[in-house]
Amino acid sequence: MVSRVAMILESFDSSVELSASEIGRATGIPLPSAHRILQELVRVGFLEQDEGSRGYRLGLHLWELARRNSTHLELRDAAIPHLERLQSRFRCIAQLAVLQGTDIVYLEQVGDPSSVPNVTRAGIRLPAVACSPGLVLAAFSSPDRQQEVLNSKKARFTDHTVVDKGRLQEIVLKAQQEHSVTVDGWLHPETSGIAVPVFMSSGTAIASCSVLVRSDSPGRNAIKEQLMLTGRELAKTIKTRRIGVPDSSLEMLKMRLRSLSSSRKIWPAPGTAAGPE
Amino acid sequence: MVSRVAMILESFDSSVELSASEIGRATGIPLPSAHRILQELVRVGFLEQDEGSRGYRLGLHLWELARRNSTHLELRDAAIPHLERLQSRFRCIAQLAVLQGTDIVYLEQVGDPSSVPNVTRAGIRLPAVACSPGLVLAAFSSPDRQQEVLNSKKARFTDHTVVDKGRLQEIVLKAQQEHSVTVDGWLHPETSGIAVPVFMSSGTAIASCSVLVRSDSPGRNAIKEQLMLTGRELAKTIKTRRIGVPDSSLEMLKMRLRSLSSSRKIWPAPGTAAGPE
Repeated sequence: MVSRVAMILESFDSSVELSASEIGRATGIPLPSAHRILQELVRVGFLEQDEGSRGYRLGLHLWELARRNSTHLELRDAAIPHLERLQSRFRCIAQLAVLQGTDIVYLEQVGDPSSVPNVTRAGIRLPAVACSPGLVLAAFSSPDRQQEVLNSKKARFTDHTVVDKGRLQEIVLKAQQEHSVTVDGWLHPETSGIAVPVFMSSGTAIASCSVLVRSDSPGRNAIKEQLMLTGRELAKTIKTRRIGVPDSSLEMLKMRLRSLSSSRKIWPAPGTAAGPE
Repeated sequence: MVSRVAMILESFDSSVELSASEIGRATGIPLPSAHRILQELVRVGFLEQDEGSRGYRLGLHLWELARRNSTHLELRDAAIPHLERLQSRFRCIAQLAVLQGTDIVYLEQVGDPSSVPNVTRAGIRLPAVACSPGLVLAAFSSPDRQQEVLNSKKARFTDHTVVDKGRLQEIVLKAQQEHSVTVDGWLHPETSGIAVPVFMSSGTAIASCSVLVRSDSPGRNAIKEQLMLTGRELAKTIKTRRIGVPDSSLEMLKMRLRSLSSSRKIWPAPGTAAGPE
């Protein structure tokens, strides 16, 4: 049943709204079962149903729930001012990404998407091996994880994308020495990506700050230097706020667990609530 | 089963990580069943399990999925530059919120949370009747919805919070005339909220832009005027980008449905992928 719920929610991958029969076709779940599960998903707020068309959409409550107590999104909140400073100084696109298995997930992207030719945006997932944040995160993860990334399926986005394992291994080694990765034209022929690691005190990278700039833009060294400074500043912010991003795959990482001091549900203190008139 | 999945995911309301037995206690689901569902939730990526502690956390995949093709989050993306301009001009906190039932949900909040005494943040839910965005959204929703909001349970956050239905009704009437609501000290004694509607072409408010400022801050009229301009500009952006925020509860709203032209999954065009070495 859990897998059916997951299949139904996953079926909204390219449409805002789906009918019950479209969901049935996409998931292979027989229509009577699909109808029953859909009604339950509406009841718990994971889906919303349009009163007119009777079609289904992902519910806002799913997003509320997913945001709640996520250390990843605390990390995102901490990074936004740093990304905005980078963006406003260099008119680039500034991004924050984390490693999930052999993929990276972009937690945030700041800047006008039309300013630099670009295929990424917040919330999407890319093969780590195909982009600068992925390679810099591979460079500073465990040896096993690094090999998994280097052995993962390669995808050639443009003529410039490197898919040769030997060359990728060299890029990772260089990243370990230089604490940054620059790739030119891998995801879009006219765009370069520059990424740096954001270190936990353990020496593991928990995230990557990166920028996208036009490949012909001048002053890339200045951008890289500022980006490295941003990575160190964000690491300090993370340490100060005691944000820990757990990743069960980062074996080196010993997570100190903690409860958030304040719940995200906001209600007055007990005893102060007035009843309905 | 769907309700058990929902109960498990909801149980992460004040803790980043929970053990299986804590989840069992919080949900009332017997431990053997809880264990089975938890393993399935890990398998589909809705939860993550720490390799060391064996505790569970909300999975980043849940957030990825919830973000996908959400018109609410398209609205948020469209609003961010507008909120940032407000914030940088007035050093206030700028927010975007939508009505969900008789609550409002904050889709975004821009600005340093420590700059204005404040209890809200992105992703949280508040009774609409207790804050300026909620009242302005009630003023420009259907008569039935407006009454539901006015009849909903009142909560006194501070001594200043208005909980009298007659006075709330007056505020809503005034909002309809003035296209804005200002409340002083309702959520925090030292803070004022000013909210304006963001209209769809139908004349329904689909969201509210609002700011939080210190109650004693000068130039509030200038802020309100700029906020009203921001609301109109965001409405234009929404129209240009053809963003429709469906809300089955807004009976006046006839949603034009559409599929997104581009999926959020990014992979090269078929035939261009290189296999693993």
